[in-house]
Amino acid sequence: MVRLDFDKMGGLIPVIAQDYLSGRVLMLAFMNEEAWQTTLSTGFVTYYSRSRNELWTKGKTSGNMQKVKEIYTDCDDDAILIKIEQIGGAACHTGFESCFHKKIEDGEIRIVGTPVFDPKEVYKK
Amino acid sequence: MVRLDFDKMGGLIPVIAQDYLSGRVLMLAFMNEEAWQTTLSTGFVTYYSRSRNELWTKGKTSGNMQKVKEIYTDCDDDAILIKIEQIGGAACHTGFESCFHKKIEDGEIRIVGTPVFDPKEVYKK
Repeated sequence: MVRLDFDKMGGLIPVIAQDYLSGRVLMLAFMNEEAWQTTLSTGFVTYYSRSRNELWTKGKTSGNMQKVKEIYTDCDDDAILIKIEQIGGAACHTGFESCFHKKIEDGEIRIVGTPVFDPKEVYKK
Repeated sequence: MVRLDFDKMGGLIPVIAQDYLSGRVLMLAFMNEEAWQTTLSTGFVTYYSRSRNELWTKGKTSGNMQKVKEIYTDCDDDAILIKIEQIGGAACHTGFESCFHKKIEDGEIRIVGTPVFDPKEVYKK
């Protein structure tokens, strides 16, 4: 039986979401025990939002959900790598495929890639 | 000028190390501001050890240092992805290439891959 170490970060573990086909790292977020169990039982990734203090099923608003393909825990069970199928092709709320689209070169940020969707359209009220 | 958000985690940011050629995710650890600046100035990854409360230049003991190839910050600048050349071929202190060598299937852990080195030899006193 898998027991993750939620104690090191006060109830949270960091989670890396990686595209299961391309290998691109799409985002990093956190889970608490409930988010972890929800992810396991639904097959879609649910994080814990530190800013909103609530469970956060990725893509519930945008439709860009993350379907679980493979899950790995690390050597000391305090971090998780989830290989996912990114529905809609973009993980970032800015519309980019990856949240890691800001390359640091010589102390400056250069945006890499082009947005997959327009956040103003996706998140409009 | 790049300004990372160290405030959300009390002075730390999570850092993902990814092999720059294979795309495999090798480990997740943390940096404080000093570790970040040390990484930038030396070109080799230095983390901050939460258990030892000190800077931790990866591979200083084992020789398996991590040479910086590319650095990305995420949309809200509170996490870092570093593409690295893993000297010695293994990032994990257990001898495996990746710390994420424990695959979770049906609630059980299955070890994936074979160790690159024998930790008893590398870390002997």
